[in-house]
Amino acid sequence: MSPSPSRSLAVAVVGATGAVGVELLRCLDQRRFPLKLLKLYASARSAGRRMPFAGRELAVQELTEKSFTGIDLALFSAGGETSRRFAPAAVAAGAVVVDNSSAFRMDAIVPLVVPEINPEALRTHRGIIANPNCSAIIAITPLWAIHRVNRIRRMIISTYQAASGAGAAAMTELEEATRAHLEGREFQQKVLPHPYAFNLFSHNSSIDPETGYNGEETKVMQEARKIFGDPELRISATCVRVPVFRAHAVSVSFECERPITPAEVRELIAQAPGVKLVDDRARNLFPMPRDASGQDDILVGRIRPDLSDPTGRSISLFSAGDQLLKGAALNAVQIAEQLLAAELRAAS
Amino acid sequence: MSPSPSRSLAVAVVGATGAVGVELLRCLDQRRFPLKLLKLYASARSAGRRMPFAGRELAVQELTEKSFTGIDLALFSAGGETSRRFAPAAVAAGAVVVDNSSAFRMDAIVPLVVPEINPEALRTHRGIIANPNCSAIIAITPLWAIHRVNRIRRMIISTYQAASGAGAAAMTELEEATRAHLEGREFQQKVLPHPYAFNLFSHNSSIDPETGYNGEETKVMQEARKIFGDPELRISATCVRVPVFRAHAVSVSFECERPITPAEVRELIAQAPGVKLVDDRARNLFPMPRDASGQDDILVGRIRPDLSDPTGRSISLFSAGDQLLKGAALNAVQIAEQLLAAELRAAS
Repeated sequence: MSPSPSRSLAVAVVGATGAVGVELLRCLDQRRFPLKLLKLYASARSAGRRMPFAGRELAVQELTEKSFTGIDLALFSAGGETSRRFAPAAVAAGAVVVDNSSAFRMDAIVPLVVPEINPEALRTHRGIIANPNCSAIIAITPLWAIHRVNRIRRMIISTYQAASGAGAAAMTELEEATRAHLEGREFQQKVLPHPYAFNLFSHNSSIDPETGYNGEETKVMQEARKIFGDPELRISATCVRVPVFRAHAVSVSFECERPITPAEVRELIAQAPGVKLVDDRARNLFPMPRDASGQDDILVGRIRPDLSDPTGRSISLFSAGDQLLKGAALNAVQIAEQLLAAELRAAS
Repeated sequence: MSPSPSRSLAVAVVGATGAVGVELLRCLDQRRFPLKLLKLYASARSAGRRMPFAGRELAVQELTEKSFTGIDLALFSAGGETSRRFAPAAVAAGAVVVDNSSAFRMDAIVPLVVPEINPEALRTHRGIIANPNCSAIIAITPLWAIHRVNRIRRMIISTYQAASGAGAAAMTELEEATRAHLEGREFQQKVLPHPYAFNLFSHNSSIDPETGYNGEETKVMQEARKIFGDPELRISATCVRVPVFRAHAVSVSFECERPITPAEVRELIAQAPGVKLVDDRARNLFPMPRDASGQDDILVGRIRPDLSDPTGRSISLFSAGDQLLKGAALNAVQIAEQLLAAELRAAS
């Protein structure tokens, strides 16, 4: 349901100059989000910069506690610390916050929402709605259509994550490190902890000494259970950074409660919102980051039985989705659209 | 056991100008393989080229049925068609063939050998010994130490495969495609079916319409069972090509017969031949293709419980190994060393 143009909102984008911020502006414009007002905020360092929006330019202002006066909706994407510090001020000023950081995601009273999966969770929000981790969104959105009809009990996920998840500076580092490598020059990485040119590495979040899982993997596992509303979902994730700019890929094996065939999964994926079947065996054409980049839909293919499970209840597949769009900005704007539609429904 | 210098062999390298051929020469030299004679063969197209070996240069000759007169050992790495056509001639001439292609791997009378795993399989050879698929070697060599003490019943593998597996031309294509991308130029790929610059894609082998698995995945699954000598091993593989030059990485979750702890696995890996523990949680330092390149050992880390299995029998880990060395040339030369050592033992 697209929002009616009769109701428009005063919107603040916090972290407007970041990789996700740029895409938030693009999504608001391209999806014709009904704007009464649009304010762009960032740290003092970026204040004064001008960002293109809908053929105009908007000045970026320094974020302060007073930035939210008169704001209906604040889209945060400036890291956990900024969210923890400023989201309460935004809520106190009467705004609804959609937060792209991990600050509030596992807070029991904060809805964690993928609109294709659990839009009903929005009904109980108390001012803050969390946008899930990008790898979680891209891994589980395609699986929801299956989970609804044949409960998924177990998922084993390996990711192939793009630079964009670590921000615009990491994307630049990938480009510069690769250029240096090809020119035979030394390059000292500053953003990521390991050389990135033609290399890959375990995700650069710290490891929980108790479980051995890194922060990104823990997010994927915890958030998947919360978004699916299934605390018994058994899940393990291995998160790996690959030399790709802005789309994540995931290799997933999952086990259902009852037997399931690849044909059933293909049918469910083909009809699910937010995902697109790319599973052309004859042409060897399957989801690729290059094709997923700039696309709203998550591409899904390589659907086949997981041959390591003889019970016929397990399927393997491979997906790719734009980390900055469905993994971040698009999902946040879709949440805002849902909020607006719900409010309009309540008012009518 | 290193071969005694008292016995030396006349060796032919078939496919001497290829990516693996170059490494075969390097391994023979660096490991001081006892050579009485070294002949280099390739297709007519490459005949006449000169290849460096041990500070000298050797001329490459065109491969014919008569190339094997007086040859004791023929190392083949020129593709399945060449192996099928010429390996029988080599055997007929009295040579033992170590074949890097997939031509004979699943032939019941042909030993398929990783020297760290099943050297005893060499005893029954009838002239041809197959060198396994690179992804199979890199995925399963670290797991053997565990399988020996607590049988592995199930493996779920996702690969991150380098360009080198598709040959030197694919490595060049990765470099040129990336250079073109950075310079904003169009690039038309010729070797691989998909754009390779900052992209990844499902392995470019054809898909079995019955199972949905591609040729590479089928090799990994079948060869793992044969090398482990365990036809009941349940295994599924997802093989993906990533923009890396010459080392494969693998994400593996495996299930043992009995409960097992990460500490036990770490201990077994630390003591296993051919593998090296790289599992530094504090420094976030784990196996990377960049570190594995040029190394004989397969690097193994991220050893932790597979949290999706509550029975305590499953472990996840991440490995990286040089595709051209342990994945191909080194393993072939190690097989030859084993053959030589066995022969010497029999003679003494």
